[in-house]
Amino acid sequence: MGVRAGIVVTGTEVLTGRVIDRNGPWLAEELRRLGVDVGAVVVVGDRPADLVDALRFLAGEDLVVTTGGLGPTADDLTAEVVGEVQGRPSAVDPALEREIAAIVERLMARRGWRADPEATAAGVRKQALVPDGATVLAPVGTAPGLVVPPAEGRGGPVVLVLPGPPSELQGMWPAALAAAPVQHALAGREELRQETLRLWGTLESQLAATLRQAEFPGLEVTTCLRDGELEIVTRYGADAQPEYDRLVAAVTQAHGETLFSTGPTVDEVVASAFADRGLTVATAESCTSGLLVARLTERAGSSAWVLGGVASYANSAKEALVGVPPELLAAHGAVSPQVAGALAGGARSRFGADVGVGITGIAGPGGGTAEKPVGTVHLCAIGPDSEELPRSVVLPGSRSAVRQRSVSLAMQMLRQLLVGGPPA
Amino acid sequence: MGVRAGIVVTGTEVLTGRVIDRNGPWLAEELRRLGVDVGAVVVVGDRPADLVDALRFLAGEDLVVTTGGLGPTADDLTAEVVGEVQGRPSAVDPALEREIAAIVERLMARRGWRADPEATAAGVRKQALVPDGATVLAPVGTAPGLVVPPAEGRGGPVVLVLPGPPSELQGMWPAALAAAPVQHALAGREELRQETLRLWGTLESQLAATLRQAEFPGLEVTTCLRDGELEIVTRYGADAQPEYDRLVAAVTQAHGETLFSTGPTVDEVVASAFADRGLTVATAESCTSGLLVARLTERAGSSAWVLGGVASYANSAKEALVGVPPELLAAHGAVSPQVAGALAGGARSRFGADVGVGITGIAGPGGGTAEKPVGTVHLCAIGPDSEELPRSVVLPGSRSAVRQRSVSLAMQMLRQLLVGGPPA
Repeated sequence: MGVRAGIVVTGTEVLTGRVIDRNGPWLAEELRRLGVDVGAVVVVGDRPADLVDALRFLAGEDLVVTTGGLGPTADDLTAEVVGEVQGRPSAVDPALEREIAAIVERLMARRGWRADPEATAAGVRKQALVPDGATVLAPVGTAPGLVVPPAEGRGGPVVLVLPGPPSELQGMWPAALAAAPVQHALAGREELRQETLRLWGTLESQLAATLRQAEFPGLEVTTCLRDGELEIVTRYGADAQPEYDRLVAAVTQAHGETLFSTGPTVDEVVASAFADRGLTVATAESCTSGLLVARLTERAGSSAWVLGGVASYANSAKEALVGVPPELLAAHGAVSPQVAGALAGGARSRFGADVGVGITGIAGPGGGTAEKPVGTVHLCAIGPDSEELPRSVVLPGSRSAVRQRSVSLAMQMLRQLLVGGPPA
Repeated sequence: MGVRAGIVVTGTEVLTGRVIDRNGPWLAEELRRLGVDVGAVVVVGDRPADLVDALRFLAGEDLVVTTGGLGPTADDLTAEVVGEVQGRPSAVDPALEREIAAIVERLMARRGWRADPEATAAGVRKQALVPDGATVLAPVGTAPGLVVPPAEGRGGPVVLVLPGPPSELQGMWPAALAAAPVQHALAGREELRQETLRLWGTLESQLAATLRQAEFPGLEVTTCLRDGELEIVTRYGADAQPEYDRLVAAVTQAHGETLFSTGPTVDEVVASAFADRGLTVATAESCTSGLLVARLTERAGSSAWVLGGVASYANSAKEALVGVPPELLAAHGAVSPQVAGALAGGARSRFGADVGVGITGIAGPGGGTAEKPVGTVHLCAIGPDSEELPRSVVLPGSRSAVRQRSVSLAMQMLRQLLVGGPPA
């Protein structure tokens, strides 16, 4: 792992969690694919001193990528600060200023917004500031990117300055990689492979024991438990492939009955199964209220197998939209295995789908009782031959956690129903 | 802003984006509430050297909070590494070892999982490692937290070591704050206020011009554009309250027609409006497929006003479940203002709700035409007096971005319908 990079994410809105950072992980993954080892992602607010500290912290890397802080407002300071740290004072680039002005004009015309010309010009001028000797990357939105090597005679990393909006950053990435100083910084890297094993129903400590029983030189193994799924992610150079094969064999031998994938996510497994078998699915969700059908339709092309779903939050909706018999609701309550089954069956018949999924539960924080505590969730999947797969659980955590885990469990149930493997 | 803190998030799964970090933002917000200034969040993988570097980077802070790396596997190294950096070697704490063993036993019994006793014991022993002189915080899951001051005679911050699962971290937070070394580190902090203004329909550069026209000493202002909404977040000490009032007046004067909130989010505004007016809502979503109804039900208590929704992904579902006339689909196509109106009306009548929302569009990446490009979305909200609010847009970005922005626009339409303010 010869070439190392660091990432600096700027923005008080990211630091304080008002905006979830998508750029750090995206960049880390892209750099990993290129064989670059990312040591750290540093998130700082819009204060110049904190940005300077972050750049100094990463001064030993070969490449530093910054995201954000290239907008027209006073808190957008990245270009100037990076210029200072690299010993390259910034000045307005007149050609770039004209280019950005034209973009902003088109943007405002399209939205039909009026604007004070002087204010607009000041913002444009700010976005056209370029450190001396930096390479300008053409704007995808309104902000240009910058490649800023250290000034002549100085050491330290090349700093690649990218805009904050993920679509702009990702759109600019190919041009950024093609820039000569970036190519130079990345020279000497070697390919790194990454593979993932996925288990459902094995404790992390059991897996740890398996991994401890043998040495796997050349593999960097990390494990991660998420919503009941245990992921084993391994990174390694091409020459360690035999070691990785040995690891797969060891995990398969010890935990084969819970290993459900040597690569694809449960979402990919389920989507492929529907597509390959030409089956369709519909859902009826109470406590998860649309989260499962939203997840099933995240993938492009999912309209081929997802017919739709009902978020039957109110009991009246369970009756009217899904056809759950009122007697069933009266006899067992809305949160019961019986109603989960009726929701699955109703979704299947109302949408005319091959597979139906029903979910009903108490996500909390209110609504729990001694008999049915918060976190009680009943699920049912009904397959193309009317085979029923019921599951009842009491899930820990917040309202949001209970909803998310219910959806993950439903995905595992679909996986079990369609392709077999470990029980969900 | 007398007291400063830094946050270290550990875990290769976070660094590479397989897991989205929720702890850094949560901790930053909690510390801000306490009047502590957070300068940086550093994300590192599960390599001891990178964790050491991160701790050294934050050596000038008063308090450092770490999250993650306390599990039973070999890649969980935080406790030992923090002990080394603080000059406090770690050893197994026998009482803690017994406590964790009992927790793990209960956990496995409840799940009905069998496990190799020796493997389990090794994992428990690992989780019971405590740096010499550290304060142990009782486990919420299986991992304890640790408060590790620098060894006698050493300088540097107190390091608070917390587990990675958000529910465990949050559950342990009160005990962590109560620990004497943390209290000591936080002494001398002063209250910081944070207020937010929210605009819908103003360009960031226009706002920048407004903010440049006057000086607002003592305010730390950041702006953030998200899904069309412009947030202005200001942090300030109590004595700068008059300055903040002046800023609100300036923004109101210049952008009053787009200012829709001086605090609450659009979700809160909409939820309050439904609750206060005793109205109910139902949705029929095509391209967003449940995302809107899932968002409306994120809040506890939303069952009082959300009756449910239909994700009518297939045309057959639009007809059967929502009652969209087949002639309308044939004449205008599924993605049309007419069908959006029929979805809103159908949702309203099928669920018996006061308010109905319909969304239909092309999220992409496929399915676009010259006439209806990817990103074309038609929305309609129908109010309690059958008043219709239609909107048609072409949204930029990925499939996921188009879906998210459509939902945000629908929330603004509900806001406009229920409480007025800037047009959505």
